[in-house]
Amino acid sequence: MLIVMKTDATDADIERVVQIINDLGFRAHPMPGATRTAIGITGNQGSVDVARFESLPGVAEAIRVSKPYKLISLDLRPEKTIVRVGDATIGGDELAIIAGPCAIESRAQAFAIAEAVHKSGVKFFRGGAYKPRTSPYAFQGLGEDGLKILAEVREAYGLKIVTEALDEAGVDLVERYGDMIQLGARNMQNFSLLRRAGRSKLPVLLKRGLAATLDEWLLAAEYIMAEGNYNVVLCERGIRTFAQHTRNTLDLAAIPAVRRVSHLPVVVDPSHGTGKNYMVTALARAGVAVGSDGLIVEVHDQPERALSDGAQALNLKQYDQLVQEVRAIHEVVTPAAVG
Amino acid sequence: MLIVMKTDATDADIERVVQIINDLGFRAHPMPGATRTAIGITGNQGSVDVARFESLPGVAEAIRVSKPYKLISLDLRPEKTIVRVGDATIGGDELAIIAGPCAIESRAQAFAIAEAVHKSGVKFFRGGAYKPRTSPYAFQGLGEDGLKILAEVREAYGLKIVTEALDEAGVDLVERYGDMIQLGARNMQNFSLLRRAGRSKLPVLLKRGLAATLDEWLLAAEYIMAEGNYNVVLCERGIRTFAQHTRNTLDLAAIPAVRRVSHLPVVVDPSHGTGKNYMVTALARAGVAVGSDGLIVEVHDQPERALSDGAQALNLKQYDQLVQEVRAIHEVVTPAAVG
Amino acid sequence: MLIVMKTDATDADIERVVQIINDLGFRAHPMPGATRTAIGITGNQGSVDVARFESLPGVAEAIRVSKPYKLISLDLRPEKTIVRVGDATIGGDELAIIAGPCAIESRAQAFAIAEAVHKSGVKFFRGGAYKPRTSPYAFQGLGEDGLKILAEVREAYGLKIVTEALDEAGVDLVERYGDMIQLGARNMQNFSLLRRAGRSKLPVLLKRGLAATLDEWLLAAEYIMAEGNYNVVLCERGIRTFAQHTRNTLDLAAIPAVRRVSHLPVVVDPSHGTGKNYMVTALARAGVAVGSDGLIVEVHDQPERALSDGAQALNLKQYDQLVQEVRAIHEVVTPAAVG
Amino acid sequence: MLIVMKTDATDADIERVVQIINDLGFRAHPMPGATRTAIGITGNQGSVDVARFESLPGVAEAIRVSKPYKLISLDLRPEKTIVRVGDATIGGDELAIIAGPCAIESRAQAFAIAEAVHKSGVKFFRGGAYKPRTSPYAFQGLGEDGLKILAEVREAYGLKIVTEALDEAGVDLVERYGDMIQLGARNMQNFSLLRRAGRSKLPVLLKRGLAATLDEWLLAAEYIMAEGNYNVVLCERGIRTFAQHTRNTLDLAAIPAVRRVSHLPVVVDPSHGTGKNYMVTALARAGVAVGSDGLIVEVHDQPERALSDGAQALNLKQYDQLVQEVRAIHEVVTPAAVG
Repeated sequence: MLIVMKTDATDADIERVVQIINDLGFRAHPMPGATRTAIGITGNQGSVDVARFESLPGVAEAIRVSKPYKLISLDLRPEKTIVRVGDATIGGDELAIIAGPCAIESRAQAFAIAEAVHKSGVKFFRGGAYKPRTSPYAFQGLGEDGLKILAEVREAYGLKIVTEALDEAGVDLVERYGDMIQLGARNMQNFSLLRRAGRSKLPVLLKRGLAATLDEWLLAAEYIMAEGNYNVVLCERGIRTFAQHTRNTLDLAAIPAVRRVSHLPVVVDPSHGTGKNYMVTALARAGVAVGSDGLIVEVHDQPERALSDGAQALNLKQYDQLVQEVRAIHEVVTPAAVG
Repeated sequence: MLIVMKTDATDADIERVVQIINDLGFRAHPMPGATRTAIGITGNQGSVDVARFESLPGVAEAIRVSKPYKLISLDLRPEKTIVRVGDATIGGDELAIIAGPCAIESRAQAFAIAEAVHKSGVKFFRGGAYKPRTSPYAFQGLGEDGLKILAEVREAYGLKIVTEALDEAGVDLVERYGDMIQLGARNMQNFSLLRRAGRSKLPVLLKRGLAATLDEWLLAAEYIMAEGNYNVVLCERGIRTFAQHTRNTLDLAAIPAVRRVSHLPVVVDPSHGTGKNYMVTALARAGVAVGSDGLIVEVHDQPERALSDGAQALNLKQYDQLVQEVRAIHEVVTPAAVG
Repeated sequence: MLIVMKTDATDADIERVVQIINDLGFRAHPMPGATRTAIGITGNQGSVDVARFESLPGVAEAIRVSKPYKLISLDLRPEKTIVRVGDATIGGDELAIIAGPCAIESRAQAFAIAEAVHKSGVKFFRGGAYKPRTSPYAFQGLGEDGLKILAEVREAYGLKIVTEALDEAGVDLVERYGDMIQLGARNMQNFSLLRRAGRSKLPVLLKRGLAATLDEWLLAAEYIMAEGNYNVVLCERGIRTFAQHTRNTLDLAAIPAVRRVSHLPVVVDPSHGTGKNYMVTALARAGVAVGSDGLIVEVHDQPERALSDGAQALNLKQYDQLVQEVRAIHEVVTPAAVG
Repeated sequence: MLIVMKTDATDADIERVVQIINDLGFRAHPMPGATRTAIGITGNQGSVDVARFESLPGVAEAIRVSKPYKLISLDLRPEKTIVRVGDATIGGDELAIIAGPCAIESRAQAFAIAEAVHKSGVKFFRGGAYKPRTSPYAFQGLGEDGLKILAEVREAYGLKIVTEALDEAGVDLVERYGDMIQLGARNMQNFSLLRRAGRSKLPVLLKRGLAATLDEWLLAAEYIMAEGNYNVVLCERGIRTFAQHTRNTLDLAAIPAVRRVSHLPVVVDPSHGTGKNYMVTALARAGVAVGSDGLIVEVHDQPERALSDGAQALNLKQYDQLVQEVRAIHEVVTPAAVG
């Protein structure tokens, strides 16, 4: 169920509706928009009486939602959500780029890369302290020491820190040291983790699972939002298919498909999406041309020595080239994407 | 690295090798076999001196392992592992069947089904108390109340309880009420959860992820074993493909593929593997014919009223028919599978 | 549209209906069944007047068909079709096995294998004279010389010859030398070839395409039948997925899925379905256990010297073992599959 | 084997090498390049003596080719091939756009669309006269009448006609009425058809199969080239995956992957690649941004009345918008793609 308020509804009108929803034992999710506020209702197993709400002051209409998702939907919020991370944004007019190494390996490595990212005018720095590795014997990240290095990077360059939480305890740590919680593809349906992220004050970058349908991905975002955290950014990072010339198959059609049903911003990961250094820039261009809100890209000062995912990291020179190219595309595509 | 002991090595010989491995800061995993014990070594980032071990009393040879996995491998343990759950086994001569509802819905439902399972001579009862649901608004299971019902079923019928843990806290609860921890397909690469299950005394049923390669699945088992829990049963439950006539595509070739490299038992889930009631028995027959160690099957006393996965549950009569048919196949196939 | 005749309809009644259909410019496909004849109508773009037929003598009812297929469907023919190839059958009580080399390489090779196939009591011999090879530089088969060897095998052993036609000219040749036209996975939607096979007197073995949905596969059979050739046997030979432990993923759920909608027999190809010698027998057992009507299996007297697909061919001893095992399974499963 | 001629080799030198190759019973494929000519050799089953060629006048070196393909490869021809179709080109600096309806339905429809295509400055017109349809009962195209309409369009507007041949007889017809032979995804491994197209004077547009790996696709092109037709354009049109929000998953990473090994031009089909009208322009932008040589796009004057594939066709206004947007992207990306 979804309550759409009139454009001239007062704060008191909205508060009254929220109160009644809560009194019924449900949860109210008010979403202010450019012209009107809508209020999502979750927690209702059965039916809610439409008439009860439509007679309240300030209510334009009450809509039954037949789709499996509610809060992520354009029905609830027709304008795109702009996720704010301090003074940086994802989902607004500016192309959001998140760049940095796969894993934080040392203070020197992190600073060498952060220096380049900062210089390029990019505002988000990525870097893993806890790495989800297929083998228990592979490098698993520096742990909290890695997070401390990230906090230093933030201090030194003012970059916003995007870093992955592998479990609920990991969310606590990202909250202490970082700016945005990354949830990885392998955890896209780790529902306990989604709920924990939903109770965080930090925005969440939610990667699509390797075999996730569009609905499963959107419903994973819905898990986060149903807990009250509406700052979710979706990230297309490639799906698993039979194709062997890339590590994953980047499904760029997912961007217009998300747009058609959801107000959430969506970014593209051409690094995991291809797994091959030589393709990253080409697919980054495509990711911007298709209309995404940004990119997340792996950069390393010495890719050939990277402890993880070296084959897909750009070196600093390639990274600068990428930033230049995608900004040129973004300039051309913006009116088109909007128009 | 893998240390193979001589057939006449004494317990003291084995203990000495284990001690030295531990002193080096690594972890020793002794695996007693029918004719000799092998000792896996994990935790070694770099190389270990082979000569150092080969000169010790009782050591036959020290082998460098080039494959990504060590503990799951036939190199370490040439005989199939028999996982014991009380007086029941998985991986031995008897076909192991795990049957029960998708979710525990009520005491009455659980007992009606358990009665039938017990009568059929089957020893394992499945039932979810915590359900991983794609939508946050779908029935999520009875929680701890469901586990209490399962404990009552165990008490009443002597059935071994197999139930899913969704997170680390869930493992604590299964340890309290159940006999075997099920880890679901969506959590196959939830590495924190794998590690927690690896520190449990209970055996683990590890479902294959929807898009997991053979190596990824085996390495997920390796995560559990590397923590010291060697009682892992693999479960093929279908993979995600383009095919739409089933919910998943049951990949029965995974059973001989696992056999070729691993000593771990492997069972088949024809319920999730097809998602369609009318196919379950046919694929269960195939799963036994291909040489698996058992089946996990969804049964419901009133499938049309099931709160989850009703479309794939067998009713009690269909279930009895399935048990009869797969036992007949098992009888025929056993010498073949062994021979 | 589908006309179901009364059980006591006379030949003249049937002939009258067929005549009217033809006069309307459509095509009539009478399918005699155990208790009644049904008559499919194809070629009608728009609607046909139901009442016109229901008033005719001998007509029980006229049914509008809403599914995309008509002739392959159980609506038209509720009993399974038994395809007769001389004195051998596919789709009847006996398990049909088609065995032989991937490609005919020489007279000596063909006869060595045929000798073993004949001895095992199997009635169908396979062998390619024209091979569809991924590379233009790979061995393409002996061509018509290969077909002549196949004709000699038929003469010598009375085996029915199943061999692939790659194009319309190839069908002419198979008609001259063989008993059953095989259409390969890569040609499943070569519609000109399907139509040509539909005008042949020989039965057709139609392999499922690598990425074919159930409907696409059944509609490919419908192409053949719409031309008047109703002797079609479907063959599941594995689909392309992300899995890398096999050449293809054998989708055994396709067998009950076909059964549910179609009267056509369906066999399983565990050789291409796995691509690995050591798995073939296990999957052959599974293919019989799931309820298929038969198997098509690659056998070679010297697999290590095979000019194509040697990695998946069984040697003669393994072949004998397979025949023995699948017959044992078939005996157990037959009443089950029927029941 | 591949013979690289010196930059100052004379025509007589080249002719001599070709002659010797032919005398050996092989086939020579001379490929003139910007700075030197290379000569591919096909038809050699075994080894060719390298020394024999390296001592000839004008020969720089003879290279053994270890990859499965030879003629499509950058080893043979380091510069991109520019395919000329009359005064239009694919693979040069200009973005090649091929636009038109899925199927030719009438003279009026074809001319209405061709008028718009011509006005937009686009040089290639597509339209199917023979349609490969999943169902035998669906509209199969106007046949030769459709080709005659296409020939009239060519006459009237000077557009180059790209149209599909479904079989060998179809190639004869396209040669009579069209300018470029399209081979569809379902026929990508119809080897008889590939060989027939390889003997044509017309250039060939080769669509990637629904489940084709990169190597299979390139080897299909190799089949055409091995017969002597070197004017092949590859077309990425989406692959079959589990994703359901599009008809196919457009694999844009295939473009840089092709570039890395082949000199052949490659275009993108965002219409079949998505199957959804609302996504076509976004993916067309991405297809140009990723560095492809052009697009093939379905346009219809009345998409809602189209006899086939209406859901993915753009109307004339949307088409104009697409052309404008992709040209803007092409302008930005050209130096990047080249640089």
